[in-house]
Amino acid sequence: MPHYTALVTLLAIGLFFYSGLLVGMERSKTGVKAPATTGHPDFERAFRVQMNMLEWMPIFVPALWLFAYYISDIWAAGLGLIWIAGRVLYMRGYLQAAEKRGPGFGIQALAAVVLWCGALFGVISTLIKVH
Amino acid sequence: MPHYTALVTLLAIGLFFYSGLLVGMERSKTGVKAPATTGHPDFERAFRVQMNMLEWMPIFVPALWLFAYYISDIWAAGLGLIWIAGRVLYMRGYLQAAEKRGPGFGIQALAAVVLWCGALFGVISTLIKVH
Amino acid sequence: MPHYTALVTLLAIGLFFYSGLLVGMERSKTGVKAPATTGHPDFERAFRVQMNMLEWMPIFVPALWLFAYYISDIWAAGLGLIWIAGRVLYMRGYLQAAEKRGPGFGIQALAAVVLWCGALFGVISTLIKVH
Repeated sequence: MPHYTALVTLLAIGLFFYSGLLVGMERSKTGVKAPATTGHPDFERAFRVQMNMLEWMPIFVPALWLFAYYISDIWAAGLGLIWIAGRVLYMRGYLQAAEKRGPGFGIQALAAVVLWCGALFGVISTLIKVH
Repeated sequence: MPHYTALVTLLAIGLFFYSGLLVGMERSKTGVKAPATTGHPDFERAFRVQMNMLEWMPIFVPALWLFAYYISDIWAAGLGLIWIAGRVLYMRGYLQAAEKRGPGFGIQALAAVVLWCGALFGVISTLIKVH
Repeated sequence: MPHYTALVTLLAIGLFFYSGLLVGMERSKTGVKAPATTGHPDFERAFRVQMNMLEWMPIFVPALWLFAYYISDIWAAGLGLIWIAGRVLYMRGYLQAAEKRGPGFGIQALAAVVLWCGALFGVISTLIKVH
């Protein structure tokens, strides 16, 4: 069992949970009532922060675990922490202004792509060895 | 393999699939045509029921499985069933009126937080034992 | 480890990543600026292609892996490839016109339902054998 990867997964889930809390708080601050998801720029940016992280979770989590299995637990966890750091930066930037979401987005995208490529390399190598 | 957790995972997926069916049915009932996701309050509430469950799936599923691995299959499955019950209540409430989504939301959030905390405790205990 | 299932999972993630790239490209083409997600039909269809795949990822990925564990790696991978083919068809159709999203949607839904039913059958059979 890749314990470090498990720990990083739980941290990522924690951050995602927090991004959902922020959306709830912006609902009460800006008065955008459910089920609406538009109506105030501050709310819309907080909502998009959560939605974008949601979009990346099914890329990040499976790539992270396959990387951990085929390559290394500790490297998967390290890249996972970089992904989380990128997401924090993205969140902080985007909550201020849409234009400030670039750097954090780039960091997390890069970390996810490295995890994905590493996992793909690992699977294919293993399939070649097996046959 | 935590078989009970596997079973509860499939039940949760089934409910999520059903929440998507409801959105499709509301599309034809209310005449909100794809790609629009706004235009009629009944459609919007059905859509938000599905979206909110979608937001919680990447919290629930990994927390459930890590809890099952580090703590207990049967307890994971039990908490998973409570989560599903909370989601059913949320769905039933929210489809009637946005104000009625509170209790179900609270139950499923609590179950997910317990799963997450238990899994975190399990990972950290194991990492301490290993070193 | 179900290696073929792992490979198909990474391919599915790759397609999902690509559907996100298309949304970004439509943003610049149509001038729909973040955080907005409406304002031009071409953008809205590209956005819904990504969102719909996002909605199906938490159905597809766990069902695929449980099917691989309880039934067969190679059959899981084959059904997974059909799912991906359905998603490609859906994407190509929906990007042209909302009315053209039907066939691809049907194929991927059918593949996912078969994976889900197979996994459910596998879990229940195993639980009966164990007791």
